[in-house]
Amino acid sequence: MASLKDFQLMFFLAVFATVAWLATAGDPDILTDFVVPPNSLNSTDGNLFTFTGMRGIFENLPSTFKVTKAAMAEFPVLNGQSVSMAVLQFPTEGLNPPHTHPRSAELLFLIEGCLEVGFVDTTNKLFVQNLQVGDIFVFPKGLVHYQYNADTKIPAIAISAFGSANAGTVSVPLTVFGTGISDGILAKAFKTDVATVQKIKAGLVPKP
Amino acid sequence: MASLKDFQLMFFLAVFATVAWLATAGDPDILTDFVVPPNSLNSTDGNLFTFTGMRGIFENLPSTFKVTKAAMAEFPVLNGQSVSMAVLQFPTEGLNPPHTHPRSAELLFLIEGCLEVGFVDTTNKLFVQNLQVGDIFVFPKGLVHYQYNADTKIPAIAISAFGSANAGTVSVPLTVFGTGISDGILAKAFKTDVATVQKIKAGLVPKP
Amino acid sequence: MASLKDFQLMFFLAVFATVAWLATAGDPDILTDFVVPPNSLNSTDGNLFTFTGMRGIFENLPSTFKVTKAAMAEFPVLNGQSVSMAVLQFPTEGLNPPHTHPRSAELLFLIEGCLEVGFVDTTNKLFVQNLQVGDIFVFPKGLVHYQYNADTKIPAIAISAFGSANAGTVSVPLTVFGTGISDGILAKAFKTDVATVQKIKAGLVPKP
Amino acid sequence: MASLKDFQLMFFLAVFATVAWLATAGDPDILTDFVVPPNSLNSTDGNLFTFTGMRGIFENLPSTFKVTKAAMAEFPVLNGQSVSMAVLQFPTEGLNPPHTHPRSAELLFLIEGCLEVGFVDTTNKLFVQNLQVGDIFVFPKGLVHYQYNADTKIPAIAISAFGSANAGTVSVPLTVFGTGISDGILAKAFKTDVATVQKIKAGLVPKP
Amino acid sequence: MASLKDFQLMFFLAVFATVAWLATAGDPDILTDFVVPPNSLNSTDGNLFTFTGMRGIFENLPSTFKVTKAAMAEFPVLNGQSVSMAVLQFPTEGLNPPHTHPRSAELLFLIEGCLEVGFVDTTNKLFVQNLQVGDIFVFPKGLVHYQYNADTKIPAIAISAFGSANAGTVSVPLTVFGTGISDGILAKAFKTDVATVQKIKAGLVPKP
Amino acid sequence: MASLKDFQLMFFLAVFATVAWLATAGDPDILTDFVVPPNSLNSTDGNLFTFTGMRGIFENLPSTFKVTKAAMAEFPVLNGQSVSMAVLQFPTEGLNPPHTHPRSAELLFLIEGCLEVGFVDTTNKLFVQNLQVGDIFVFPKGLVHYQYNADTKIPAIAISAFGSANAGTVSVPLTVFGTGISDGILAKAFKTDVATVQKIKAGLVPKP
Repeated sequence: MASLKDFQLMFFLAVFATVAWLATAGDPDILTDFVVPPNSLNSTDGNLFTFTGMRGIFENLPSTFKVTKAAMAEFPVLNGQSVSMAVLQFPTEGLNPPHTHPRSAELLFLIEGCLEVGFVDTTNKLFVQNLQVGDIFVFPKGLVHYQYNADTKIPAIAISAFGSANAGTVSVPLTVFGTGISDGILAKAFKTDVATVQKIKAGLVPKP
Repeated sequence: MASLKDFQLMFFLAVFATVAWLATAGDPDILTDFVVPPNSLNSTDGNLFTFTGMRGIFENLPSTFKVTKAAMAEFPVLNGQSVSMAVLQFPTEGLNPPHTHPRSAELLFLIEGCLEVGFVDTTNKLFVQNLQVGDIFVFPKGLVHYQYNADTKIPAIAISAFGSANAGTVSVPLTVFGTGISDGILAKAFKTDVATVQKIKAGLVPKP
Repeated sequence: MASLKDFQLMFFLAVFATVAWLATAGDPDILTDFVVPPNSLNSTDGNLFTFTGMRGIFENLPSTFKVTKAAMAEFPVLNGQSVSMAVLQFPTEGLNPPHTHPRSAELLFLIEGCLEVGFVDTTNKLFVQNLQVGDIFVFPKGLVHYQYNADTKIPAIAISAFGSANAGTVSVPLTVFGTGISDGILAKAFKTDVATVQKIKAGLVPKP
Repeated sequence: MASLKDFQLMFFLAVFATVAWLATAGDPDILTDFVVPPNSLNSTDGNLFTFTGMRGIFENLPSTFKVTKAAMAEFPVLNGQSVSMAVLQFPTEGLNPPHTHPRSAELLFLIEGCLEVGFVDTTNKLFVQNLQVGDIFVFPKGLVHYQYNADTKIPAIAISAFGSANAGTVSVPLTVFGTGISDGILAKAFKTDVATVQKIKAGLVPKP
Repeated sequence: MASLKDFQLMFFLAVFATVAWLATAGDPDILTDFVVPPNSLNSTDGNLFTFTGMRGIFENLPSTFKVTKAAMAEFPVLNGQSVSMAVLQFPTEGLNPPHTHPRSAELLFLIEGCLEVGFVDTTNKLFVQNLQVGDIFVFPKGLVHYQYNADTKIPAIAISAFGSANAGTVSVPLTVFGTGISDGILAKAFKTDVATVQKIKAGLVPKP
Repeated sequence: MASLKDFQLMFFLAVFATVAWLATAGDPDILTDFVVPPNSLNSTDGNLFTFTGMRGIFENLPSTFKVTKAAMAEFPVLNGQSVSMAVLQFPTEGLNPPHTHPRSAELLFLIEGCLEVGFVDTTNKLFVQNLQVGDIFVFPKGLVHYQYNADTKIPAIAISAFGSANAGTVSVPLTVFGTGISDGILAKAFKTDVATVQKIKAGLVPKP
């Protein structure tokens, strides 16, 4: 569910895109040292380049899988720097379901616990690996991948790096079964019946 | 002074350049007019720039959805030209199931029949449109999309353009349910039970 | 001569450049899924991604060569997607005179008739090919090329793809002989006399 | 219609562009400091990075226009550095005929004499300028341009910079009239008769 | 027709491609899902995408500042993925001296201890910040920066992300005073005397 | 599993990489011919593309090293053209102290006098060369370099080209010793004492 903050950001980005097509800025090198976001003009000092939104993040263990991003939306001065990060927290049996990042590869550094990771290339070959603490795994750009903490006792924590200030995320289950694509099309696509599609859809829709 | 390690790296990179898929190094402008594939050196004439693999394609109607590509694999001189094409043929009720192209947007030109098209953006918003002959639709880069010919009498044909010589395709049903990702992970991801996952998997696996 | 529509576009582009220099953004990946043009906010739905300007195009045969584009000017949401298309219609003996596209290669798909195509590389080598229906030909980026329907009975139609949202077109005859470059310079450049230059100029200027 | 808020944002963006030069196109990088050409491995020292082919160039005045390049073909270590240079020498009434560079803009610095320069944009507008010593003129990427030393007594010399290691050159007269494009097609393209085309062709072909 | 010179260039470029470091051609998107390093062909499985060189890294505290990289040299499959990582370990009063990365910005995530960080932009403005655990700081691309653990009791550890598979490092003290630039030039550059330069040089040279 | 076709393609691509013109980095494009700066709208003619700020520059010899730029700040229409120039003037014993350009390589053309040039790569190897009139030297992107006119009688003049409209400059002495980095950190970085750091700082600070 989109939070109030999400809507504020969405509104900001909509206005942003509306007037000046600013998104066209792309992800290449910029022609200045950095790009000062508009509401930071009065304080172009070290604070501008500091993101504090991760403070204390390792002190709390979420009850389900949780991703916390430091990308352009949360940390606007990343615009034009072609890099961002995220913290991934997996409670026991926590799963980051199959998804893609349309604008970057992901480099995942496991700093706590164990993690099963996997991705599928465009020839439909699955690559799976069981990571231990200290391992780094790369998910190539644009490919479907997932991470799963199969352990029943120890949580897992990873820090991910992306080669874009806004890698974006396409969650496969929600994108396909949670957005209103018709039951008939999905049944045909997954070569199953409408009842099965409806069952999956029901499970993915948040209860009121 | 270059250390032993440096020389090892230099050697590695030299071998690397010699053997690996380096032609694939990127999709930017090239530094020559075009790149001659190695087995074409004896005939660098107009034939090199001509792809004949689509001849007669409109004369046969496939019984299921069929895509025919003119991309770098089929038409090697496209390397470095940042463009490719495909013909999409939909019999009645033919479906191109949800998929993404990791390396390019798609611009679809409907030249015969009607077509329902849709894509989902990274905020999980679904965009659907019913196209008629002559309409052009753009599927933004990296997003999940599908096309469906709902008509029961008239086939549909589209010509698609891509801004990459090798856009790549990730088919969601096959990638997720046809590549060996474990039943338990998929059940968790789609918030359903293992039996449902197994049922979908069975439908997607080709019968012997 | 610039039409009213041209001036509207020029004005639009001037304002565009004036306010944010954003046209400079280039043709790389964007940092959002897509860029919403400013006047489209009230209808960010499937219509935004649909271009209907080609409807009925195959029903009329123009009396001279005609190109109809679906590029950023006509279809603004292409901004940042690095792809565009055009329909080329050739009546019998119709010619698309020598020209270049400064910002993209062109991939031409012949869907009706026959077509002679040619381009010249930077070593001044001419590549000519006679295409039949279904053939695809690539004109490498930035090189001078032409297409000619030599047939005296059957028109030709092609659909072209470009790896840029705004490939641009430089028509050689008009650029060189229709823009006011002095007769003396042109005579010197083409190693001919001023009378010949003036004769060509006169032919290219539209009669009142 | 733009709302008040839109104008506020537009104003903001104008300031933004002024203050931070909003993030325009960038130059792609190589993944090493430089690329050593294969036959230079035994002498990776300062000589590798030095091009001596221009020595003494200013001591001789050619009798016709002459361009001397320092680009990737002559100076291989430029590979991956995205920059090259050329010296242009114009005797009195010397002309560099209309041409384009498919892979870069050109920045021309006039260091001796006077020079008339001109280019035509994709709307067929001609821009002409008379340069004096010390002036710098930019020919935008991919557009047709020429330079002419109209002076009858003083030669002109210019140094040009290109934002590519291999900008390439397409000479319009030679490309169009010197490469075998058929007389009929050229007559049609230039809206003249075959005799005129043949006359121009004869002038451009070097005599045996 | 290709001249002898053309063939020489073609031959040169062919050899060039064979031997030189062309893998390093750039950091753009690749045209395949990933690039398999040559010596890994027999085992294209999950191991190829896993870097184990960081295992146990947090168990040992180095006595001086130490950086451990996971970039293209150590983890070759990163080639073409435009991302890399590093672990920075600072004992008490440990310093990463002023340096630049020629090919990427750096995003530093402090996971243990405190850290003073600073960089200087191209207008010679210094930005300094004192980070606490959980803070993320961005060093814009190509600018001189440093990190210092001023604490006398607690070590500091950071994980850095880079938007290039091979960001590169230019250490200012070693580059300037440790590579043989003449004493006179350095004295002039730093507006000091030769004795001071020699003193600094002596301190930077490792004792035998 | 890779099919026979896959292996054929792999083999083809391997050969391809070995033989073909390996098509390295390119230059990104803008989506218009050029970008008109906002305050130039009333005069979009040849003047817009002309920079006159260098007129008369060769008539005066500065008493200390002086760089005069024609980059995006001075010549705004360069925005998006990926190229800029500068004139470097060295009186006898004039020095351009060690510096880097974060956004471009530099190609230096010596047009008067002699010049010692040097740069240091990321393996800390120094490359030095003594240039004579007519020599061109390339300083690879992002590396520290300097130029020095050792001659005691003849000044030197060079014209430099950059593959970016705004290459930027980071002067090492000023950046490190002239921006307020603490004495203690600098002493530690340069492995010297605080007194030496303060002495250098004092020399670099302009006297009131």
